[in-house]
Amino acid sequence: MIIAIKQGATEGEVQRFTALLEKQGVKVNLSVGASQTVLGLVGDTTGIQEKSLLAHQLVEKVIRVQEPYKRANRLFHPDDTQITIAGIDGETRHIGGGYLGIMAGPCSVETRDQIIGVAQAVKQAGAGFLRGGAFKPRTSPYSFQGLGCEGLDLLIAAKKATGLPIVTELMAIHQLELFDEVDIIQVGARNMQNFTLLKELGCCRKPVLLKRGYAATITELLMAAEYIMAGGNDRIILCERGIRTFESYTRNTLDLSAVPILKKQSHLPVIVDPSHATGLSWMVPPMAKAAIAAGADGLIVEVHQNPEEALCDGEQSITPATFAGLMHTLQRYAALENRIW
Amino acid sequence: MIIAIKQGATEGEVQRFTALLEKQGVKVNLSVGASQTVLGLVGDTTGIQEKSLLAHQLVEKVIRVQEPYKRANRLFHPDDTQITIAGIDGETRHIGGGYLGIMAGPCSVETRDQIIGVAQAVKQAGAGFLRGGAFKPRTSPYSFQGLGCEGLDLLIAAKKATGLPIVTELMAIHQLELFDEVDIIQVGARNMQNFTLLKELGCCRKPVLLKRGYAATITELLMAAEYIMAGGNDRIILCERGIRTFESYTRNTLDLSAVPILKKQSHLPVIVDPSHATGLSWMVPPMAKAAIAAGADGLIVEVHQNPEEALCDGEQSITPATFAGLMHTLQRYAALENRIW
Amino acid sequence: MIIAIKQGATEGEVQRFTALLEKQGVKVNLSVGASQTVLGLVGDTTGIQEKSLLAHQLVEKVIRVQEPYKRANRLFHPDDTQITIAGIDGETRHIGGGYLGIMAGPCSVETRDQIIGVAQAVKQAGAGFLRGGAFKPRTSPYSFQGLGCEGLDLLIAAKKATGLPIVTELMAIHQLELFDEVDIIQVGARNMQNFTLLKELGCCRKPVLLKRGYAATITELLMAAEYIMAGGNDRIILCERGIRTFESYTRNTLDLSAVPILKKQSHLPVIVDPSHATGLSWMVPPMAKAAIAAGADGLIVEVHQNPEEALCDGEQSITPATFAGLMHTLQRYAALENRIW
Amino acid sequence: MIIAIKQGATEGEVQRFTALLEKQGVKVNLSVGASQTVLGLVGDTTGIQEKSLLAHQLVEKVIRVQEPYKRANRLFHPDDTQITIAGIDGETRHIGGGYLGIMAGPCSVETRDQIIGVAQAVKQAGAGFLRGGAFKPRTSPYSFQGLGCEGLDLLIAAKKATGLPIVTELMAIHQLELFDEVDIIQVGARNMQNFTLLKELGCCRKPVLLKRGYAATITELLMAAEYIMAGGNDRIILCERGIRTFESYTRNTLDLSAVPILKKQSHLPVIVDPSHATGLSWMVPPMAKAAIAAGADGLIVEVHQNPEEALCDGEQSITPATFAGLMHTLQRYAALENRIW
Repeated sequence: MIIAIKQGATEGEVQRFTALLEKQGVKVNLSVGASQTVLGLVGDTTGIQEKSLLAHQLVEKVIRVQEPYKRANRLFHPDDTQITIAGIDGETRHIGGGYLGIMAGPCSVETRDQIIGVAQAVKQAGAGFLRGGAFKPRTSPYSFQGLGCEGLDLLIAAKKATGLPIVTELMAIHQLELFDEVDIIQVGARNMQNFTLLKELGCCRKPVLLKRGYAATITELLMAAEYIMAGGNDRIILCERGIRTFESYTRNTLDLSAVPILKKQSHLPVIVDPSHATGLSWMVPPMAKAAIAAGADGLIVEVHQNPEEALCDGEQSITPATFAGLMHTLQRYAALENRIW
Repeated sequence: MIIAIKQGATEGEVQRFTALLEKQGVKVNLSVGASQTVLGLVGDTTGIQEKSLLAHQLVEKVIRVQEPYKRANRLFHPDDTQITIAGIDGETRHIGGGYLGIMAGPCSVETRDQIIGVAQAVKQAGAGFLRGGAFKPRTSPYSFQGLGCEGLDLLIAAKKATGLPIVTELMAIHQLELFDEVDIIQVGARNMQNFTLLKELGCCRKPVLLKRGYAATITELLMAAEYIMAGGNDRIILCERGIRTFESYTRNTLDLSAVPILKKQSHLPVIVDPSHATGLSWMVPPMAKAAIAAGADGLIVEVHQNPEEALCDGEQSITPATFAGLMHTLQRYAALENRIW
Repeated sequence: MIIAIKQGATEGEVQRFTALLEKQGVKVNLSVGASQTVLGLVGDTTGIQEKSLLAHQLVEKVIRVQEPYKRANRLFHPDDTQITIAGIDGETRHIGGGYLGIMAGPCSVETRDQIIGVAQAVKQAGAGFLRGGAFKPRTSPYSFQGLGCEGLDLLIAAKKATGLPIVTELMAIHQLELFDEVDIIQVGARNMQNFTLLKELGCCRKPVLLKRGYAATITELLMAAEYIMAGGNDRIILCERGIRTFESYTRNTLDLSAVPILKKQSHLPVIVDPSHATGLSWMVPPMAKAAIAAGADGLIVEVHQNPEEALCDGEQSITPATFAGLMHTLQRYAALENRIW
Repeated sequence: MIIAIKQGATEGEVQRFTALLEKQGVKVNLSVGASQTVLGLVGDTTGIQEKSLLAHQLVEKVIRVQEPYKRANRLFHPDDTQITIAGIDGETRHIGGGYLGIMAGPCSVETRDQIIGVAQAVKQAGAGFLRGGAFKPRTSPYSFQGLGCEGLDLLIAAKKATGLPIVTELMAIHQLELFDEVDIIQVGARNMQNFTLLKELGCCRKPVLLKRGYAATITELLMAAEYIMAGGNDRIILCERGIRTFESYTRNTLDLSAVPILKKQSHLPVIVDPSHATGLSWMVPPMAKAAIAAGADGLIVEVHQNPEEALCDGEQSITPATFAGLMHTLQRYAALENRIW
């Protein structure tokens, strides 16, 4: 971290400020130039906030040379993290490290027939994981809130029927005890900075699918991962799912640039959710292809037998038939990117 | 709600779609024009989502004529809601309905001396409420996370010492049992769509200070209030605290237009947080004046005896002396807006 | 266009309003429902603005069913527009309609050797067009402003040396007389709503490369194209080059979703500029691949022999060697998308 | 400007890079720390771009300590710039330096009666300047494009009838010859980075009202002013008129924080346009008050006798009666801010 000192600061002031900084556990290199005094902080600066430094009257500007995350940082962990999940069908599935993970299923679990039907269809098309919501975060208190525990039971039934590992969203810590048979715990975009929840998941030993908040920067997403990793759980899958911008044709703006950036900055696998990002089913296939081409380690896609009657997010769900066609196409893109399916 | 039907839809298709809609509890008026068929939905459409309608192949466009919130809606509750808090010092304080509520104090509770000192200073300057964080949401897991329960105890001590009602942030439901002596529960911007938390606060009988998420629309803020109100708690104070935009000079962009809009759309009181919005202490006074001029029912301001040594957010805290000067100035603005102090 | 009338409007008021609308050349269908009166406007509504209607006291809401653009609209022109350019080398090059157009070259023309050298290198790697700036829009008046007329001469020299058609930016109408030998006229992002310039280009008979403004919606981009087309010039290539969002890792956020949307809404070819969008040379290859996978009809890429010494935009320029490698890779993506090179 | 050098750079590499920098006219102070080498650039760095430096492989990060603008910078020009305009009625009007400038009038000039009528009404209410559009930038080529030269003549007639100086928008350089009797030339938001136009206005000797582009940062607005000032014209009035964000209730988001920031960074007067920012007439009064409270040096407000029949922007125009009431209220706010009317 480099601190530019304001012009006119006295030597004594700079010394006192240096002493203050060193109390925070870093070494300070002082460089006095003809017109500019610069302090270089050496050591672990992850606990020092730029913003707090700016409160000091001597400080003109601050640049952070090191990223504020450590465990999520590729610098300290050059190899790709690969998430491995042993299915109850005896198959082992991987995400990251050259493997593509494809998660598919309905926005909400609705009935036993629906979820088992979709699970069978997406498995046959080649998906590795079944997604489905039991606890649903909804903007309106008057909208369908998910089947809750019953939904979870149906999802587990679908897992048993097909062998597909399951991914579902956790909305509050107290639900964790119900998630024993869940294979990947999803943290939704609205909870990406629910720090209490993140800390709790740090103590958990299940993989976490961490969705980017729709107004979160890439650094904030990695800091959210860092919260979980700081607790000891480093099996995290990052997920780009669209950010909020002025463009209103799509629900959110899918930020595919985030894929190569996250892969460069971090060793964690990165997947993309084209369904929530665009909010439009016809856009799922082109954006899924683009995600793979940009280097994603997987996809999470909404699939529903009858989108028009879906209790939630029908406008962005594709049918099993469209999904099967998409999977067929994606294999050729995956091959170009040397991804094992 | 009005639904424009796609050209080429047959009479039978429209009838089946109408039947589907009526199952959701609304009456449908059919208008067949020469080139455009339009359905008008009559009744309570708050449970019907535009997005779900768009999944139907007959639907061209949807407009919602009624807002999706009811209890927070001024249409059904024309008079201003006023939040009244009886202080342990015998004084009764109001927010809304012509009364300004000024909340001031440090970002984080640090020590007994600090919090009691600030409390005395801001009370003397005319603040009606003491703010201070015990549980702190921080972007980095390596930053100071607040004193937790001890911080809460110190805050309560400051309340006892000065009589000022206290406002502090709740980060998780399980902390609620510790909040007995807290007067106003703050929901932070990052938790504005933590729906589990909102539902729980609906069952609570304390006023809630609900901060706008930094990427939340005005409608989403009102829907978050609706979640709490749907549970039976209608003592909510809305707070504009800046939204995320491309401009990076300020931490966030203070959206003062939200003040007259929220006052028009809702009966709930609306306050403004110029400290978090701008992130710069020198900007607090002008933006505080502007907030009152725009019609705000109050302010929440960070005040710290020694911002340079604050453990959190020092760069946006003003000193007690600056705060006292600001309060003196604000009285004249409050008078122009006919606000009782 | 559908207009929802406010409750409480009298029959006479609605009649007078209807008469006012019909004066603007549309037919109005009146639908009086039990609780909602709706007007449906039939005919050409492209000249009627939603915003102006909202000024009328009877109007509750307005939905536009038809898009406000006609000539750029795929609805009225279902087949892809293909831009064909006859090169002085006897080769004919196409963009759109199944053909990929790859434009490459430096941000700024600097010297004869530089531009001819890059032109030869990108031609050999397979580019169809040479890009290069002579007149440069720069944020600072103190930055290098381009070589101007001399730059144009050098660009034409490079065209003669290689046969590559050239693309360069026009910043003001009076420069048009210098553009005789330019093959494609570029309108930069900052001029996308310079309506005087757009109108003038409508009278011109050269293809126009129209870049999306960095805060322009997709509809506004199509309306800018409509300005040019309304003047009689329908040879327009649309270009997505990143929009401004809160994310600051990249210069702008490349909105690849715009590609399938523009292709659906319009018949015009759509290309992508990964260099300006990301502002980082290492991100050009992954985003170029993703652009093709999303359905783009081409790319415009910055290539410089020595990015470190470029007078402009060096940080986003790739070397000829990187470009050649990228082109090799892109051929396989183009094949998957059935694009002819 | 401070440059952090990447770890592992050799002494020779740093020397060569230093020599390269010094060729650009700055002196370089080298500070070699234990773990970080830092270069401090002394001298005029306004011509050096951070982005270009980042293209160099040795460069890790760059911080600009000095702002990239000079003539617009308050640092080098501590006193407020005051724009003074001598009216043909013998009255002298000021903007800035303690004086409020209030500009009012219709979006578009429509007829002689309209513009003279509004001019008389706003003058009587206390406005100092008449605004009105003759050349109109419109998103659609099919919308009313303004009366052009005829509109300009009518505006000049209104100036003669009332003595009010006039403000109107210039859309292209060639129109400049028609602007002899115009008192303040307006550059619209869409032309804020039309650098050719800005350069031309630098040679002009009339005050320029420079509107912030709706996606322009505060620094970019000041750089646009710098373009004009670099040409020798320093009579510039900056205008905040809303920025584009995700919030769609208002047309744009009025960024009132820009007012104190612009006043701190620059000596130029700053006015606010609440009409275009909000796009809603009922929001003009509260936001006008807030603008004055935030420290603005004036306002530009749309006033129309009959907003429902306005050819342009009726939904955001207030009536002369509302304007008169607003002016009455604003006097009390101006008094609190020590602004002379």
